[in-house]
Amino acid sequence: MAKKYIDINTLKFQLFDVHELESVLSSNYYNQHDVESINLFLESVKDFSDKELHPHFVEMDTQPAYFKDGKIIVHPVVETVMKKGGELGIIASPIEMEDGGLQLPLAVHTIAYTIMEAANNHLLGYPGLTLGSAELILSFGEENLKEKYVPHMLTGEWAGTMCLTEPQAGSSLSDVTTTASPQSDGSYKMNGQKIFISGGDHQYSDNFIHLVLARIDGAPAGTKGISLFVVPKNRIAEDGSLEFNDVVTAGDFQKMGQRGYCTAHLMFGESDDCQGWLIGQAHHGLKYMFQMMNGARIAVGRGAAAIAMAAYHASLEYANERPQGRKIASSGKKDVTAEQTLIINHPDVRRMLLLQKALSEGAICIVMQGAHYHDKMKAANDHQEKKKYNLLLEMMTPIVKTFPSEKGIESANNGVQVLGGYGFCSEYILQQYLRDIRIFAIYEGTTGIQSLDLLGRKMLMKGGKGAHLLAQEINGTIMSAMAYDELKPYAKTLGINLKRIADVMEFLTAFAQKGDFERFISDATIFMDFMSTIVAGWQWLKMATLAKEALVTGNIKYENSFYESKIHAMKFYFKYEMTKTQGLAEVLMDEEVLTVAKGEEVIV
Amino acid sequence: MAKKYIDINTLKFQLFDVHELESVLSSNYYNQHDVESINLFLESVKDFSDKELHPHFVEMDTQPAYFKDGKIIVHPVVETVMKKGGELGIIASPIEMEDGGLQLPLAVHTIAYTIMEAANNHLLGYPGLTLGSAELILSFGEENLKEKYVPHMLTGEWAGTMCLTEPQAGSSLSDVTTTASPQSDGSYKMNGQKIFISGGDHQYSDNFIHLVLARIDGAPAGTKGISLFVVPKNRIAEDGSLEFNDVVTAGDFQKMGQRGYCTAHLMFGESDDCQGWLIGQAHHGLKYMFQMMNGARIAVGRGAAAIAMAAYHASLEYANERPQGRKIASSGKKDVTAEQTLIINHPDVRRMLLLQKALSEGAICIVMQGAHYHDKMKAANDHQEKKKYNLLLEMMTPIVKTFPSEKGIESANNGVQVLGGYGFCSEYILQQYLRDIRIFAIYEGTTGIQSLDLLGRKMLMKGGKGAHLLAQEINGTIMSAMAYDELKPYAKTLGINLKRIADVMEFLTAFAQKGDFERFISDATIFMDFMSTIVAGWQWLKMATLAKEALVTGNIKYENSFYESKIHAMKFYFKYEMTKTQGLAEVLMDEEVLTVAKGEEVIV
Repeated sequence: MAKKYIDINTLKFQLFDVHELESVLSSNYYNQHDVESINLFLESVKDFSDKELHPHFVEMDTQPAYFKDGKIIVHPVVETVMKKGGELGIIASPIEMEDGGLQLPLAVHTIAYTIMEAANNHLLGYPGLTLGSAELILSFGEENLKEKYVPHMLTGEWAGTMCLTEPQAGSSLSDVTTTASPQSDGSYKMNGQKIFISGGDHQYSDNFIHLVLARIDGAPAGTKGISLFVVPKNRIAEDGSLEFNDVVTAGDFQKMGQRGYCTAHLMFGESDDCQGWLIGQAHHGLKYMFQMMNGARIAVGRGAAAIAMAAYHASLEYANERPQGRKIASSGKKDVTAEQTLIINHPDVRRMLLLQKALSEGAICIVMQGAHYHDKMKAANDHQEKKKYNLLLEMMTPIVKTFPSEKGIESANNGVQVLGGYGFCSEYILQQYLRDIRIFAIYEGTTGIQSLDLLGRKMLMKGGKGAHLLAQEINGTIMSAMAYDELKPYAKTLGINLKRIADVMEFLTAFAQKGDFERFISDATIFMDFMSTIVAGWQWLKMATLAKEALVTGNIKYENSFYESKIHAMKFYFKYEMTKTQGLAEVLMDEEVLTVAKGEEVIV
Repeated sequence: MAKKYIDINTLKFQLFDVHELESVLSSNYYNQHDVESINLFLESVKDFSDKELHPHFVEMDTQPAYFKDGKIIVHPVVETVMKKGGELGIIASPIEMEDGGLQLPLAVHTIAYTIMEAANNHLLGYPGLTLGSAELILSFGEENLKEKYVPHMLTGEWAGTMCLTEPQAGSSLSDVTTTASPQSDGSYKMNGQKIFISGGDHQYSDNFIHLVLARIDGAPAGTKGISLFVVPKNRIAEDGSLEFNDVVTAGDFQKMGQRGYCTAHLMFGESDDCQGWLIGQAHHGLKYMFQMMNGARIAVGRGAAAIAMAAYHASLEYANERPQGRKIASSGKKDVTAEQTLIINHPDVRRMLLLQKALSEGAICIVMQGAHYHDKMKAANDHQEKKKYNLLLEMMTPIVKTFPSEKGIESANNGVQVLGGYGFCSEYILQQYLRDIRIFAIYEGTTGIQSLDLLGRKMLMKGGKGAHLLAQEINGTIMSAMAYDELKPYAKTLGINLKRIADVMEFLTAFAQKGDFERFISDATIFMDFMSTIVAGWQWLKMATLAKEALVTGNIKYENSFYESKIHAMKFYFKYEMTKTQGLAEVLMDEEVLTVAKGEEVIV
């Protein structure tokens, strides 16, 4: 296995320089932390990852989670990440202090999880969903629900999950059929099945706190009739002991990757004895769940970026150690008597490595931009300011989820290719990264769903205000970059692309205005590719501008080569990736519609 | 598992209509066959695939080949494909009649293998490499080698392999170090190790006939000192019995896909008792091996196209059966009380399916174009004609290998996405197709190597004559398409792209002429993407023209919808894929060089 799975300096550059952590640390909300305490936290997370998580990464793949005798059995390191991780604060980190959390900025939490996920991506869903469930209960649950469940969750003693998907409904939450019947004691009797429940059952938690979408008897059809319930695997009896709450594990889905992260099939109320407690108001469940879902979407983007970076370092290490072939001389021939060169010196290998770097670091930068907006929102005292950052976060969320997932797959795929035949072999780690990362474009709403969200909702919301704010942000970076001659051409290219977004939106919204909403939305996924490619270009220009500034002012924290490599990767990204946007715009503005089914035409 | 793994009508359309089999059947070389006999052969192959190969496809993944006690153990169906397949003629099919073969056109052989590979891609390397080895011995070996080995190979009793790669050399054949010391009896004593030997050992062949690249003592350095040897696992004793020839199996590489297709590590002469026999002249081994390698490259392209088509049919079947969500109404809302729609009716799902169709059928069409040139070369009486088709085949070979592999991975990846979460689960077949197809961009020279071959050799060979001939061929299709108004815009786009190739080549060759060969070749892989995207556009326009002609003349063999779907897929390909070429040309003609290592700069 590769020796290095993450570059800490790159993450610190992201956290402190590119996404200006100190600008939120100065706020009342976050001022109990400082740079030093945060560095200490991140060091302990890195140490934990090195010693406790990374060593078990391959085992989690070769000894996957499995279902036996009604139980799911997972690798023992799951206990480590929950209990020791809980002690370390990885579940409590972004939670408010008055609720027992550390109230750390999401940006810090994101970097901490990125380190751990790069070390072992099969693990972080366990504490991550526990945290998300706790946050949801804290946000919308009644006091007694908070008191009963949250403290046990923040320590990692109990686990939390989100239960949305049902076999017949898939991504279509309108069709959720799990039922909840009101009982005289104020609880509900639950009945239904949920599938694809990540971390839904295993031997290392005394209890599982499931957040379940269901319909109260007589609820309206569609998403407007969905309510949210806390349904523990074991309910708390009068005497405080745990008693089985009729949540039965029916199986564990076996998968091509992330095999150590279990995926449960759960049955609620098979014996008619499953109790649930309503969160917030009836029929408003989906709205509440979206808080957790948005958090989970950011987490998915982060996980994908982490895997892509780990894969990059594994490929880079191989390319720096493996001699093969020779450089081409000016004659076009090779001198076969010369020593072999390291493969990193072959332009095509270097291209693939730079592509991995450009996509994976571009990906984490996008995730961090989202986290930064979250923190600015929390830190803001002013209501308008809060709304602004909330809108920016909403704009970014589908991109934060999708760019790292889609481009991360491409990046890891190139990582396999760097190793040639060895990349495909089980004894090298690249194939595992590729298998693991594949699910990220599916988790928490597929790329198709995220794309509908971006084009169909976010671009248009509040009269296009979110899109306008985002364009302003991008323009700010363009202005900063224009200060440096070396960066000017790239700043101009980014400007051209901002204009291109406006052109595409003008063309597409005409369809929505005419009522041809299906046409408007039909190439949403192409729009996502187009838009997120530009957003990543924005992030790279931002990184390059800060790197250039550091080099010019001499105000540097790392080697010169560190900053130079960021500028080089930016140029690479603009040359090889930003050149795709024109073709994508052409697709989006093509008059011909080829994917909207008119009748019963056969694809054959 | 999906019920349909291949569309036979699509393959017959490829064979008889698009690639005009009858134009070669009329030649002296192939005139012992007719349409009827060929259809019978293909039917028996389909029947064999349905009954004997497809049922074991999943098992080959879940019960992979493994190494135990010095032996590799494979699934019993390997015996079926070798012995029953041998009887059916799948090893002898393209071999000349006087050598015991069926002398079938390569186009027919290609379709037969496509069917079998779509049914079970883990299997066809076994007979395929046996055939390639037999052909090589027939082409360049002495009579006694032919007599001793080939008849046993054509029946599938003995297996053949190609042994190129060594641990320290990888793709760099200049660095092959296996030695061959001349013995007094005319044989050579072999010593060395070879890795990644597909089908290199298993329990179902009495003998393995390895074709081994090695250096005779005192041979010059580099590829000019490489000779080719026949090295059987068991040599034939005086009395005709088999005696062990000191070829020891050291292991079987475990892989992320194609797990039923073993990948051996072989040691030759560990006990100093391994005999080999020289093929052809000393030091000319690589030239001979290239015959087999070129055949293998076409086979790799074919296999990838077959997997991509099988994955397409599996996704299509799912999308035609799975209800989920609802169509979007003109209000932009969904009517949640309406019945769910099949997912094939969602534009994004339809887009992914059409992408799968466009890429996978485009891929097989490219492979068939290569096979057609091969057959035209064989069928030609005239020397100039033979040279022409040989040049065209040489031009096409790296593209035939690469487009199906690279775009096939993308296609299968989209196939997984069509199924959402189920696509990632082991109980559905898509994830296996994705894992299996990943190796095809690595087999027989990675995409990087194929790209160097295309840009560095093929585009320039004989003063650009091959490239010129290919452009003429493409122009021919443009002319035919211009006869139909519906196709004119696409024909024009293809014409613009022909001009684009010329522009790119003019820009790039200037570097080669200046002696900056490394710069010339540095973006070879981008050039491959650019060029092969256009070549696939050419093939789609050809398919659409024939489909249009059939519809206009009423001279049809299949349903109208069959032809309409081909025209639709062509339009889809031009809209979504051909729009990428401008951006790729921009990359290729960018002045900035970012991937050529100048010194010791660090990527970080």
